[in-house]
Amino acid sequence: MAKRVLTPQAEDFPRWYQDVVAKAELADNGPVRGTMVIRPYGYAIWERVQRELDDRIKAAGAKNAYFPLFIPESYLRREAEHVEGFSPELAVVTHGGGKQLEEPVVVRPTSETIINSYFAKWVQSYRDLPLLVNQWANVVRWELRPRIFLRTTEFLWQEGHTCHASEEDARAYALRILHDVYHEVMAEVIGIPVLAGLKTRRETFAGADASWTCEGMMGDGKALQMGTSHLLGQNFSRVFGTQFLTDKGESEYVWQTSWGASTRLLGALIMGHGDDAGLRIPPRVAPVQVVVIAVRADNGVGERCLSLTEELRARGIRAELDTRVDVSFGRRAVEWELKGVPVRVELGPRDLAEGLSTVVRRDESSKETMALSGLVPRVLDLLEEIQIALAAEALRRREARTVQVSSAGDAGEAAQDGFALAPWDLVRDQEERLAQAGITVRCLQRDADRDNPPSSTGEPRLVATLARAY
Amino acid sequence: MAKRVLTPQAEDFPRWYQDVVAKAELADNGPVRGTMVIRPYGYAIWERVQRELDDRIKAAGAKNAYFPLFIPESYLRREAEHVEGFSPELAVVTHGGGKQLEEPVVVRPTSETIINSYFAKWVQSYRDLPLLVNQWANVVRWELRPRIFLRTTEFLWQEGHTCHASEEDARAYALRILHDVYHEVMAEVIGIPVLAGLKTRRETFAGADASWTCEGMMGDGKALQMGTSHLLGQNFSRVFGTQFLTDKGESEYVWQTSWGASTRLLGALIMGHGDDAGLRIPPRVAPVQVVVIAVRADNGVGERCLSLTEELRARGIRAELDTRVDVSFGRRAVEWELKGVPVRVELGPRDLAEGLSTVVRRDESSKETMALSGLVPRVLDLLEEIQIALAAEALRRREARTVQVSSAGDAGEAAQDGFALAPWDLVRDQEERLAQAGITVRCLQRDADRDNPPSSTGEPRLVATLARAY
Repeated sequence: MAKRVLTPQAEDFPRWYQDVVAKAELADNGPVRGTMVIRPYGYAIWERVQRELDDRIKAAGAKNAYFPLFIPESYLRREAEHVEGFSPELAVVTHGGGKQLEEPVVVRPTSETIINSYFAKWVQSYRDLPLLVNQWANVVRWELRPRIFLRTTEFLWQEGHTCHASEEDARAYALRILHDVYHEVMAEVIGIPVLAGLKTRRETFAGADASWTCEGMMGDGKALQMGTSHLLGQNFSRVFGTQFLTDKGESEYVWQTSWGASTRLLGALIMGHGDDAGLRIPPRVAPVQVVVIAVRADNGVGERCLSLTEELRARGIRAELDTRVDVSFGRRAVEWELKGVPVRVELGPRDLAEGLSTVVRRDESSKETMALSGLVPRVLDLLEEIQIALAAEALRRREARTVQVSSAGDAGEAAQDGFALAPWDLVRDQEERLAQAGITVRCLQRDADRDNPPSSTGEPRLVATLARAY
Repeated sequence: MAKRVLTPQAEDFPRWYQDVVAKAELADNGPVRGTMVIRPYGYAIWERVQRELDDRIKAAGAKNAYFPLFIPESYLRREAEHVEGFSPELAVVTHGGGKQLEEPVVVRPTSETIINSYFAKWVQSYRDLPLLVNQWANVVRWELRPRIFLRTTEFLWQEGHTCHASEEDARAYALRILHDVYHEVMAEVIGIPVLAGLKTRRETFAGADASWTCEGMMGDGKALQMGTSHLLGQNFSRVFGTQFLTDKGESEYVWQTSWGASTRLLGALIMGHGDDAGLRIPPRVAPVQVVVIAVRADNGVGERCLSLTEELRARGIRAELDTRVDVSFGRRAVEWELKGVPVRVELGPRDLAEGLSTVVRRDESSKETMALSGLVPRVLDLLEEIQIALAAEALRRREARTVQVSSAGDAGEAAQDGFALAPWDLVRDQEERLAQAGITVRCLQRDADRDNPPSSTGEPRLVATLARAY
C-alpha cells in the first residue's frame, strides 16, 4: 500500500530534507535565488518559537525596538573586521525613487553598525546603562549555496544589542542570553540538546572579541549552529563613539554584546526530530498538537469527533478535526504523519459503539486503544511524554555518535558522521587544515562540565567538539 | 515653573508632532532619508496594536506566512496599473554578493505580485478556497517628503491576501476585515472613531476594482487614512494565472482581496489624542498604564510604592515604579505626562502617614485624593473610564469639526480645517480640481447610515467626506 512519500534518510539525507520541507508545506524557494517563502504551516511553528524566545528576552530585561533595513555603505566600513566579514554577502541598493542614489545603501546583513550610531546618541551616563535592546527583523546575506531555513539570502531573526559599563557585565549578559534564552528554548521547547560553548578565534563573529554558540546534532550526525551570543568588547563603541560618563565623571567607551537566533531553528527542528515518515514536531511548538480523525462520518462519528475536538480545545490543547471522509483514511493518516502532529485520535463507527478510540503517538508510531471517557486527561499526559521522549531520543543519538579522541587525525575520522571530542591543545594547530577538509571546531568547553560555559580565555583544560556542519 | 517642553499645537501642529515623537522617545529619523528608528517606547505601543490586529485577523480565518523581500522587477510589470502606481517609489537592488545582478530586484512596496505567483501554484480546486493569508513585514516606498510614522520610506505593516471562488465572497471578506478587524481595533483599542467607507476611483489602490478605507480625524482637523481593504477582482489572478476548478469542473480565475494597516497607526494615536503636554495613550495599548511615583524615599514611602506597584501588577495592570528621588518631582511628573501614561499615583511621606495618595488622570489632568486601601480596584475602573473618555473626546472633536455642505465651493472651504460632508453627486465633477487644491474625497458612504459600509457601485445617495489629509 505505502507509496513512498519521502526519500529515506539513509539513502540521501539532504534530499529527505528537501522532500519534507516541500511535502509538509513548510516552505518554498523564492523567485530570487536563495530567498524563501515560509508557508502557513511553517510560519505557525516559527510564531511559537518566536513567542518562547521573546518572552525570555523580555524576562532578561531587553526591550524590542526597530532599526532601518537600509544602512549607508560607509557605516559598515568603519569596523574593519566587520566589513571584511560581510562585504562578500551584501545586497546593494543603487536606485531609489527613480534616481541613482548619491551613496549606495546596503540591505542590513546584521545591525551592529546602524544601532551603534544611535546608541552613541542615546547613551550619556552610567545611569543609562545597561541599555538592552532587541529587534525582530529580516536580514539579507547573499548566499551562493542556499538551503531552505539553513542558509538563505533573506532570513528572519531576532538580534539583540546591548551596552554595559564594564566588560564583566557585558560578558555575563552575553552568557545569560546564551543559557537562559537560547539553551533553554532549544533544549526544553524545541527539544534539541545543545552544546553551549565558546567559538575558536577562527569561528568568532566578524568584529567580536568572543563568540559563544549553541550547537545541536542533526539526524545525520552533522552539527548545526543554532544561535550565537557575542562579546563585542569596545570594537564598535570606539568607532562609533559610544561613550558614557562613569560615576566618577570620566568618559569611557561602553562594552557591548550582540546575539541572534533565526528561522534556521526550523531547520534544526526538522533535521533534529524528523524520520522517514516526515516531521515529528515537539508538542510545545506544534501548531496542531492533536488531530481527531473521523474514519467515517456516519452513525454519529462526525458529531462525536467534533465534540471531542472541542473538549480538547477547552483544555488548552491545539486540536484539529479531520472529517474529510471523501479522502481515504490511509491517505489522511499519512498526511498527518508527514506533518508531524504529535497525537492522532482515530474514531470509527465500531469504536464509537464500544466507547473506544485509537490513539497514535507520532514519535514512536505506537497505537493504543483508549476509552473515550478518559481520553482528554490522557492526551494531556501524552503530550508531556512526547515532548520529553523526543528530547531524550535526540540526546541518545548525540551520545551514541560522539567519540572521544586524542589526535587531530582521529578527530578528522570520527567527525565524518558525528561529533569528535578532543583536547583543544592537541588539535589547535590542525584547526585550519581540518577546516579545509570540511571539519570545524564547533565549540570549546571546559573539560569538567561540558554543558557549562567556559571562560573566554584560552585555558588549558578546554575540550573541542569537532564535526561537519551545516 | 513650567519650562515649555513642546511647541503648542495651536502654534504649529506639525512641529508639535515632531517634538512629541522625539521627546517621548517614540522614534528617530534613520540615516537613509525617510527611514525611521522605532525606539523601545514606540515599539511597545506597536506590539500591542499588532497583537490586537493579529488576534482578530486569525479570528477571521487568515493564517500568517512570509514571502520574500525581493521581487523580480518583471513581476511588477505584469499588472499595468500596479506598476504605474508603484514604480516612482521603488528601491532597486542591482548588486548582490559582489556582482551585478542579471535582473534587478525591487524591494517589495507591497506583495500582490509575488504572492500571486505562489497562489497560482497552491490553488487547484474550489476545495482550496477561500485561501486566506496574512504577513507581518517591512515594505519600502521611496518617500520624497517623509514624516515619521505617517510617510516613511520603510514601514512595518501587515498585508493580507486572499483568494475566493466568487466576487461576492471576496467582497464580503474585504468588508469583514474592514469592520471586524480595522474598524474595531481603531475605535475600541486605539480609541479613534473612524469613518469606514469606499474610496473614489481616483483614490483606489493601483490594481484594485474597489478600495475601502478607515479615515480618522486628527487633532488639527485633517484626515488620516488608517487602513485600507481592497477588492482586487481578477486583475492579478488573470496575469498570474491563478485559476481553480469549480465544483462543476470548469476552470475559473480566483477573486481576490488585499488589505493592510501599518505603523502609521502610531501617528494616528499621537495626533488623535495628544495635547500640549504630550501623548495621551489609551490604556488598552499603553506600555505603562500606571506609574507609581515616590515623591520622596524616606519614612517607608519607597517600600509602600513598591508594594503598591506589585499589587497593581497582580491585578494585571502594567504598572511602573518611579523612585528616582534624585530627580525633581516636577520634572518626573512632566516626563510621565509627556509619555502619556494614563494614570499617575503620587505618594509622599505625609500622604502615607494619612493613608492617602494623589491620583492624576492624564486625559483630563484632574487630581483626586484617594485612600490607599481602596486604590487598586479604583484604578482598574479609572483605566476603563479613560479608555472611553479619550474615544468620546475624539468623537466630539470630529462632530464639532464636520460641516454639511451642498456645493463643491462650500466643501473646499469647510474642509480647510475639518471634514466637509457633501452629496457625492454635487462634488463628483469637482473632485480633481479640489484635489489639486489639497482637498480630497476621503470616502463615500451611504447617506442613511454613514457608519455602515456602502456598496461599491456608484449609487445615487452617496455622501462624500472631503478633507485635507496626511
